[in-house]
Amino acid sequence: MIRVVCKAKLKPGVNVEEYLILARKVVTETRKEKGCIMYTLHEDVKDPSIITTIEEWENEEVINQHNKSEHCMKIVPELRKLRESTEINNYREVK
Amino acid sequence: MIRVVCKAKLKPGVNVEEYLILARKVVTETRKEKGCIMYTLHEDVKDPSIITTIEEWENEEVINQHNKSEHCMKIVPELRKLRESTEINNYREVK
Repeated sequence: MIRVVCKAKLKPGVNVEEYLILARKVVTETRKEKGCIMYTLHEDVKDPSIITTIEEWENEEVINQHNKSEHCMKIVPELRKLRESTEINNYREVK
Repeated sequence: MIRVVCKAKLKPGVNVEEYLILARKVVTETRKEKGCIMYTLHEDVKDPSIITTIEEWENEEVINQHNKSEHCMKIVPELRKLRESTEINNYREVK
């Protein structure tokens, strides 16, 4: 199992609710994907311009499929336009 | 419920296994804490010097208690000595 943390910092002046409308479309479609265990959207408690997904996937192969999915290819470039930075880490659990 | 992502980048030359021995002590004790739902240790798939905990807590009050716990007060300063940087975000889920 792979956990992914995708942390986005929005550009100053971006309307957070506008960003979330797009982000929720990705959430809805992604949760239907094979191999997606969890895909949740969050806002930082102190800074609402930090929007982060915390994700659980069966393996790296399904993450690659996700990145090539229609909803990602279509919506993620729109989300990126609204972000100042994006930080993505793929993690494996350490026992 | 609050999710916490604590991302540590280790200093160059730090022995990851040495860091993990200390970090696992925090994991063991933290999982016994009231209000701790999940507390998991991860390594970045591409960069083993990035060690991240992904955590779930009942509320912010129990996180404050955790930060004042004996194991945190004792071991976290030791962990910090081995880190180049630490990034902590507390998140609430956005529906």
